Amino acid sequence: MSDLIEPRVLKGFRDSLPQKEIAKKEVEAILEKVFTSFGFVPLDTPVLEYAEILLGKGGGETDKQVYRFFDHGNRDVALRFDLTVPFARFIATHESELYFPFKRYHIAKVYRGENTQRGRYREFTQCDFDIVGSDTVSSDLEILLVMESSFKALGIEDLTFRFSHRGVFSYFLSKLDISNRTVEILRLVDKLPKIGGEAVQEQLSELTDPEKAEKILTFISREENNERTLEKLQDLSGGTNPALDRLRDICRLLSEGLSRSSFILDPSITRGLDYYTGIVYETFLKDLPEIGSVCSGGRYDNLASLYTKTRMPGVGSSIGLDRLLAALEELGKIGNKPSNTDLMILCLEEELTGYYHSLARDFREKGIAVEVFPEKRKIAGQFSFAEKKGIPFCLICGSAEKESGKVNLRRLSTRENLDSLSLEQAAGIITQGHAPKD
Amino acid sequence: MSDLIEPRVLKGFRDSLPQKEIAKKEVEAILEKVFTSFGFVPLDTPVLEYAEILLGKGGGETDKQVYRFFDHGNRDVALRFDLTVPFARFIATHESELYFPFKRYHIAKVYRGENTQRGRYREFTQCDFDIVGSDTVSSDLEILLVMESSFKALGIEDLTFRFSHRGVFSYFLSKLDISNRTVEILRLVDKLPKIGGEAVQEQLSELTDPEKAEKILTFISREENNERTLEKLQDLSGGTNPALDRLRDICRLLSEGLSRSSFILDPSITRGLDYYTGIVYETFLKDLPEIGSVCSGGRYDNLASLYTKTRMPGVGSSIGLDRLLAALEELGKIGNKPSNTDLMILCLEEELTGYYHSLARDFREKGIAVEVFPEKRKIAGQFSFAEKKGIPFCLICGSAEKESGKVNLRRLSTRENLDSLSLEQAAGIITQGHAPKD
Repeated sequence: MSDLIEPRVLKGFRDSLPQKEIAKKEVEAILEKVFTSFGFVPLDTPVLEYAEILLGKGGGETDKQVYRFFDHGNRDVALRFDLTVPFARFIATHESELYFPFKRYHIAKVYRGENTQRGRYREFTQCDFDIVGSDTVSSDLEILLVMESSFKALGIEDLTFRFSHRGVFSYFLSKLDISNRTVEILRLVDKLPKIGGEAVQEQLSELTDPEKAEKILTFISREENNERTLEKLQDLSGGTNPALDRLRDICRLLSEGLSRSSFILDPSITRGLDYYTGIVYETFLKDLPEIGSVCSGGRYDNLASLYTKTRMPGVGSSIGLDRLLAALEELGKIGNKPSNTDLMILCLEEELTGYYHSLARDFREKGIAVEVFPEKRKIAGQFSFAEKKGIPFCLICGSAEKESGKVNLRRLSTRENLDSLSLEQAAGIITQGHAPKD
Repeated sequence: MSDLIEPRVLKGFRDSLPQKEIAKKEVEAILEKVFTSFGFVPLDTPVLEYAEILLGKGGGETDKQVYRFFDHGNRDVALRFDLTVPFARFIATHESELYFPFKRYHIAKVYRGENTQRGRYREFTQCDFDIVGSDTVSSDLEILLVMESSFKALGIEDLTFRFSHRGVFSYFLSKLDISNRTVEILRLVDKLPKIGGEAVQEQLSELTDPEKAEKILTFISREENNERTLEKLQDLSGGTNPALDRLRDICRLLSEGLSRSSFILDPSITRGLDYYTGIVYETFLKDLPEIGSVCSGGRYDNLASLYTKTRMPGVGSSIGLDRLLAALEELGKIGNKPSNTDLMILCLEEELTGYYHSLARDFREKGIAVEVFPEKRKIAGQFSFAEKKGIPFCLICGSAEKESGKVNLRRLSTRENLDSLSLEQAAGIITQGHAPKD
């Protein structure tokens, strides 16, 4: 009789096996350390919120991607689909308890019922960091520096940050007298990498006229360096303006030795229809350009306007952690460890269970992660278990060894046996070559 | 016009403000380090699963506490309400990829639409650790040692672990020939701390008879030490049995110096109607007995029987992290830090923005977490910001200081000014008394 339930997971959802989860936790710890070093603080919000909060009052016709339902109390609720909307609500809820500028990071899961055929997942982890309450070049700059430091800490220095300024683009469109077409133009510019310059120009011509289309194409192309690009933007925008001044300040500060990375002013970066109003940026790995931007964001004018009258300008970035993890794996920048265990104590005699656990405690006190194999199995089987779990050393100890206070060690990678060691000797060999966990 | 949406959260849900989130992350990191030191590995499962998986085939009449709904694809889905059921499904899904005994920990949010009037939350964090695939005294013992080490690492040594064995209880009930009443008896025994011995005895008498009721009361009471309690259990169960042998082994190993904690054999611990079959245990803080058990669990016979024919015996524990955090706060064992920032660089002149960020970088390279205040505000306002954020030091630096390469430091706790310091001197003062973050 097969009354068993098939142990399947939902389409677009995944388990994270230990190997992957260990790597993910390492990456998260590295990022959190960087964020903390810049003064960012963590927070968390509920996964489930009122649909009205997440979707706004116009959320009547639900976005199909949102997981939305009625709870036991017949409340119209939804799972968060990003970390920005809950952050806006958070800021409004706790306005009086917070200090501004408020710098927070948030690493958490979000939910979107996306089409899984494009390799998208319906549950995925985002990593957001934002500075809210200061509309300054210092904050704009800092977000870029946090991005640079984050990737550096992850071992990736070969990358390109492409940035631009939505405000400058607006001045330019206004100068061309086609501000009323901003949405369509942004949508077309966004298609550039996909359909190419010619197709974009053609469609822009239809939308506006050939002359303006050409000007837009000229505007969004890069010059040989950031200074020249700035000059061109100024020419095409009809002189300078506050947005351009800000952009120029950012370029100047970046070139003054604060950063060793490649920050390229690229006016074709617009972040599509997002709510950005100032600087916008994307991040590309030189060795994996095909995966697209691994960290994007920009400056917005008013984060929490749905919930509070207080104006909350901010600037922030978001890392798609799943995509980043895949990239790090492909680049060989993260390990593939099935465990962080350093040593396994074999079970030769079940009567020695207490002794094995006391040995384990002694090694743990020296910063060594120890596993006690809990039952008597063939030694070959116990070795093979340790190998599967990626444990580098096994400790072999029976009554005779217990008597003498000595232990035998086996290094699994070389199948080398190191016999009759004191605990100190054994601990020294195990911690050699890797710093003990502190 | 007030078109604003009220920024409220759902009943039973909470934001985690930075102060709380920092403490939570610290506690999680401490626990993860302990789990890792015992060879446990992390994993994760989806928050959302098929309702059938989470509730079993009989889940037709939904438990009212479960968040259950139909997704876009009309799938009957639910939010996980614990970490055990998803773990069982995980084990069945990945049976062939895993090695056994498999030791995992999982710290994650779960969802229950509980009555919030009892101070319960509908979204809360559980911390589970289990050993699956070994029915041995070594595994039973190890879970207890992990529990002890976890609390020790959190700074709590003043606690009592109360344990018993469900199998021994079963032998006893069988000996009394009232096995068919097990469920009702367990339910009554579970009420003991609430309604008292007299009421329990009365109700047991009604259920069985006065003589048996008295025997049950005698069975579940403790003797002056674990040895005497063991003797009594053996007498009342009509001699020894495998369950009692296991319990005796556990007691013996615990008394052999492996542990310095108070492990009390308390036969009134049954864990109610849970699926346990072997050892069961609860943990009480001596200074906060009123909050009840902060870490409970036991041995189960077959974890994944809903999904696979492979028998998976295991033993595990669960910590309610929210309750533990509240307890740690009450005991003064966790900090109340609004941030982990060590130093804030004041903004005296906005023209020095680049210099401030380069100073910050230099301090960060020395392991100091630095915040650059991004705009010129009154100095008093900047100091007060630093105080609100719990930043111990401010760095004061204008053009003259930049010229001389010196900086001025202010220790906010004492309002002491330390002028004309080199960067090295400043860094030394800041890191004094606290180890730099590594």
